Amino acid sequence: MKLAELAEATATQIECGDPEMEIHACVGLEDAGPSDISFLTNPKYTSLVSATKAGAIFLGKGTVIGRDDLAILRAEDAHVAYALALRAFNPEPEIEPFVHPTAVIDPTAKVAGDAAIFANVVIGPGAVVGSRARLMPNVVLYANAAVGDGSVLHSGVSVREDCEIGRNCIIHNNSTIGSDGFGYARTPGKKWLKVPQAGRVVVEDDVEIGANTAIDRASIGDTRIARGAKIDNLVQIGHSCTVDEDALICAQTGLAGSSDIGKRVILAGQVGIAGHLKVGDDAVITAKSATSHDVEPGKTISGIPAFDNREWLRSTAAYRKLGEIAARLRKLERKVLGEE
Amino acid sequence: MKLAELAEATATQIECGDPEMEIHACVGLEDAGPSDISFLTNPKYTSLVSATKAGAIFLGKGTVIGRDDLAILRAEDAHVAYALALRAFNPEPEIEPFVHPTAVIDPTAKVAGDAAIFANVVIGPGAVVGSRARLMPNVVLYANAAVGDGSVLHSGVSVREDCEIGRNCIIHNNSTIGSDGFGYARTPGKKWLKVPQAGRVVVEDDVEIGANTAIDRASIGDTRIARGAKIDNLVQIGHSCTVDEDALICAQTGLAGSSDIGKRVILAGQVGIAGHLKVGDDAVITAKSATSHDVEPGKTISGIPAFDNREWLRSTAAYRKLGEIAARLRKLERKVLGEE
Amino acid sequence: MKLAELAEATATQIECGDPEMEIHACVGLEDAGPSDISFLTNPKYTSLVSATKAGAIFLGKGTVIGRDDLAILRAEDAHVAYALALRAFNPEPEIEPFVHPTAVIDPTAKVAGDAAIFANVVIGPGAVVGSRARLMPNVVLYANAAVGDGSVLHSGVSVREDCEIGRNCIIHNNSTIGSDGFGYARTPGKKWLKVPQAGRVVVEDDVEIGANTAIDRASIGDTRIARGAKIDNLVQIGHSCTVDEDALICAQTGLAGSSDIGKRVILAGQVGIAGHLKVGDDAVITAKSATSHDVEPGKTISGIPAFDNREWLRSTAAYRKLGEIAARLRKLERKVLGEE
Repeated sequence: MKLAELAEATATQIECGDPEMEIHACVGLEDAGPSDISFLTNPKYTSLVSATKAGAIFLGKGTVIGRDDLAILRAEDAHVAYALALRAFNPEPEIEPFVHPTAVIDPTAKVAGDAAIFANVVIGPGAVVGSRARLMPNVVLYANAAVGDGSVLHSGVSVREDCEIGRNCIIHNNSTIGSDGFGYARTPGKKWLKVPQAGRVVVEDDVEIGANTAIDRASIGDTRIARGAKIDNLVQIGHSCTVDEDALICAQTGLAGSSDIGKRVILAGQVGIAGHLKVGDDAVITAKSATSHDVEPGKTISGIPAFDNREWLRSTAAYRKLGEIAARLRKLERKVLGEE
Repeated sequence: MKLAELAEATATQIECGDPEMEIHACVGLEDAGPSDISFLTNPKYTSLVSATKAGAIFLGKGTVIGRDDLAILRAEDAHVAYALALRAFNPEPEIEPFVHPTAVIDPTAKVAGDAAIFANVVIGPGAVVGSRARLMPNVVLYANAAVGDGSVLHSGVSVREDCEIGRNCIIHNNSTIGSDGFGYARTPGKKWLKVPQAGRVVVEDDVEIGANTAIDRASIGDTRIARGAKIDNLVQIGHSCTVDEDALICAQTGLAGSSDIGKRVILAGQVGIAGHLKVGDDAVITAKSATSHDVEPGKTISGIPAFDNREWLRSTAAYRKLGEIAARLRKLERKVLGEE
Repeated sequence: MKLAELAEATATQIECGDPEMEIHACVGLEDAGPSDISFLTNPKYTSLVSATKAGAIFLGKGTVIGRDDLAILRAEDAHVAYALALRAFNPEPEIEPFVHPTAVIDPTAKVAGDAAIFANVVIGPGAVVGSRARLMPNVVLYANAAVGDGSVLHSGVSVREDCEIGRNCIIHNNSTIGSDGFGYARTPGKKWLKVPQAGRVVVEDDVEIGANTAIDRASIGDTRIARGAKIDNLVQIGHSCTVDEDALICAQTGLAGSSDIGKRVILAGQVGIAGHLKVGDDAVITAKSATSHDVEPGKTISGIPAFDNREWLRSTAAYRKLGEIAARLRKLERKVLGEE
C-alpha cells in the first residue's frame, strides 16, 4: 500500500515522507523495518521511537519525536489510526457459503443460503441463522435460537433455547449464551428450590463477546446486551441484567442479577457488581473493584466497596503505612492520656 | 390456571380476589397485565406496586400494600411462592428417549434405554448413563464416567475419566468436571514436576452446576460436591475439596485445594478460599472476600483477608477517610510532640 | 512394588523398614492401610501421623515422627518424593494411534501417523499434529494451527488460526487458545472500533494449561507462554503478554495486555495484572492481589494495589481495627484540640 493510500484509509495527514512510498505492514516499534509503518499510542513506549527502524510512524495530535528521517502520518488519535491501518492490512476474508456434511440441522430450522456452517455444528428445531453468518465447528444452537446476519460464532459456543444474537456480532470460543440464571428460593428447611429461568438472552447488533464467557438467561423477561457493547473473556453476566450501548466490560468481571450497566460504562478487569443496581452512563469502575450501591453517571470509582477514585487513591497511599499509623497513634495516646 | 389452583400449587392463601379468576403467567411488576400474577420479593421494588397492572400478586407474611383492587395470594415466603408459581407455569418438558445417529457410544458403555442422547455426544468405554438422563449435543463422557438418573448435561460439558454425577443434577454448558488438579512439586532446579491427579470428582444428587465452571479431580481420593449444593458460573473448585450439602457458591468464586465448605455455607460472588481450610456449616462469606483461615460455623465474614462482617463494615467506612485520618494524625503529632 | 524399588523410583533412602516389603499404592494418611505408603508434606497434617495405619511413609529432611512401627522413606523433599511415587504407581497409558472415523480432517492438514485423533475432532486446513499427540473428542484446530509431539488436548479445546502448541503440553477441557485480544480504539463519537488481532499465541514445550482458560492472540506479534510454565483453570491471558519459563499462574488470575511475567514467577489465585507491566523473575504475588506497577525480581507483594508482603500483613492487622483507630483519634483530638 502506498503511503498516500494508507493516509486516506486511516484519515491521517502525511506530515513528512514520500506519498508514493510502499508500506507493507503495521508493526511494533521494536520489530518494524524500513517498509513497515509503526505507531506510538502509549507514552510508555516513547523511548523506543529513537531506535525504531520503521519507515513510517503514526503519531497523534501534539506528539513530537526528535526524528525527521522517517515518514510521519499525523492522526487526530493515533490509536484510531492504528486500528484503521490494521483493518486495511488485514481485510476480513470473504465468506464462502457452505454447509459441512457433518452438521446436524433440524428440518424446522431456517439457515440462510449464504451462511457458512462448519463441521459438527448442531442447529435445533426452529432456530434461525442469518445471511453471511458463520458458525464455526461444534457450535450448538438450541431450539428457537437465532443468529443475525453477518455474525460469527466460534467453536464451542452454545446459544440456548429462545436466545437471540443480533447482526454482525462476534462470539469467541466456548462462551455460553443463555444458561440458567442462578436463582433459588430457600425453603423453611434450608434447601434450595430452583426458580425456573424461563426468560431469554437478547444480544443486539455489533456486540463482541470474548471466550469462555457466560451470560445467563432471565427468570422472567430478558437479559439484554445492547448494541455495540464489548464483553471480554471469562465474564459473568447474571440473569435479567442489561448492558447498555457501547459499554465495555473487561475480563473476569461479574455482574450479579438484575443490574443495569449504562451506556458507555467501562468496567475494568475483575470488577464485581452486586444485584439490582444501576451504574449510570459513562461511569468507570477501575480494575478489581466492586460496588453494592448505584453509581452516578460519569463517576470513576475504585475499591471494595468502591468510592470516588481520587479519595481511594489517597486512602490506598495511607493504607501502605497503616501499621505505622496505628503505632504512632498508640505513642501519642501514651503521651497524652498517660495510658499503659 | 385458576387463582385457586395457583394458590394450591404455591401453598399460599387467597387473601383477596375471585378463586375462579384465570391467571396466565407470572410476570414482573412493570410488565404484568390483568391476567398475570406478579410478586414482591425485594423491598427495593415496593414503589412499583402502586402502578402495576397485574391482576394478582404474591405477598409475603406481613407485607402491606395500599391497594385492594388486585387479587392477593399471601405466602409464608413470597420468594418460595414465586418459585413454585414459575414451576407451575413452566413444567419440565417430557423427555423423548432417543439416541441421535451421530452420537458415538463405545460398545462397553451402558446407556439406559430411556435416556436422550443428542447429536455428536461422545460416550467412552465403560461409561454409564442413567434412566431419563439427557446429554445435550457435544457432551463428552470419558472412560468410566457415570451420569445418574434424570440428570441433564448441557452442550459442551465434559466429564472426565472415572468421575461420577449423581441423580437429578443439572450441569450447564461448557463446564468441566474432573480436569487435573493443579499440583506440582518444585524440584531443586526450580522446575515444576507434575503430581499425577489419579483421583476423581464425585457429584452427588440434586446438584446444579453453572456454565463454564471447572471442578478438578483429586490427586488421591475424591473431590466431592454433596447433595443439593448449587454452584454458579465460572467457579473454580480445586482438587480434593469437599462442598457439603446445600452449600451455595456464587459466580467466579474459587477454592484452592483440599478445603471443606460446610453445609448450607454461602460463598457470594468472586470469593476466594485458600487451601486446606475448613469453612464451618452455615457460614457466609460476602462477595469479593477471601480467607486463608478456617471460618467458624455460622459466622459472616468479609474483606481480604476476611474477618467479622460488622467490624469490616466499620473498617470500610473509616477507610474512605483514611487519607484524612493520616493528615489529622500528623497535625496532632505536630501539636503534641512539636515535631516538624 | 517393593519398598526398595519405590525408594529408587523416588530418589529416597530407606531409613527404616524391610526393602522387600510390598507397597500397593500411595494414599493419604487417614485412608492408608498396611500395604500403602503415605506422606507428610504439609505440617498442618502432622497430627494425623500418630493414627495412620499406613505401612510406610515419605518424610522430608528433618521431619521427626514419634513412631518406629512403619517403614520410612527419607526424602530431600517429601513433596517431590510424593509426586515421583504417584508417577510410579500411575504410569502414563500407552497411546494407541488411531483416527476416529467421525473426525473431520482437512486434506491439507498434516497429522502424524502415530497420533490419536478421537471422535468429532475437527482439524482445519494447513494444521499440523505431531507424533504421539492426542486430540480428545471435539477438539478443534483452526487453519494452520500446530500441535507438537506428545501433547494432549482435552475435549472442547479450541486452538485458533495460526497458533502453535509445543511438545509435551497438556491443555485441559474447554480452554481457548488464540481468541481475539480485547482491543478497540475509541472513536470521537465514543464507539468502539475493533483493532484486528492479527497475531498469534505461541505455547512452548512442557506447558500445562487448565480447564476453561482463555489465552488471547496478539494484535501484532505473539502472545507467548514459555517452556515449562503452568497455568491453572479459568485464567485470562491478554493479548501480547509473555509468561516466561517455569512461571506458575493459579486459578482465575487475569493478565491484561502486553505484560511480561518473568521466569519462575508465582501468581497465586485470583491475582490481577494490569497492562504493559513487567513482573520480575522469581517474584510472588499473593492471592487476590493486583498490581498496576512493575514488580522487582524476587519480591513478594500483596494487596490491591499490591506492595511489600510484610508491610501488607502489618496493614491488614491494623485494618481490622480501623473503626476503633478512627474513634481513638477522635477522642485524642477532643482532648488535645478541644474540638467538639
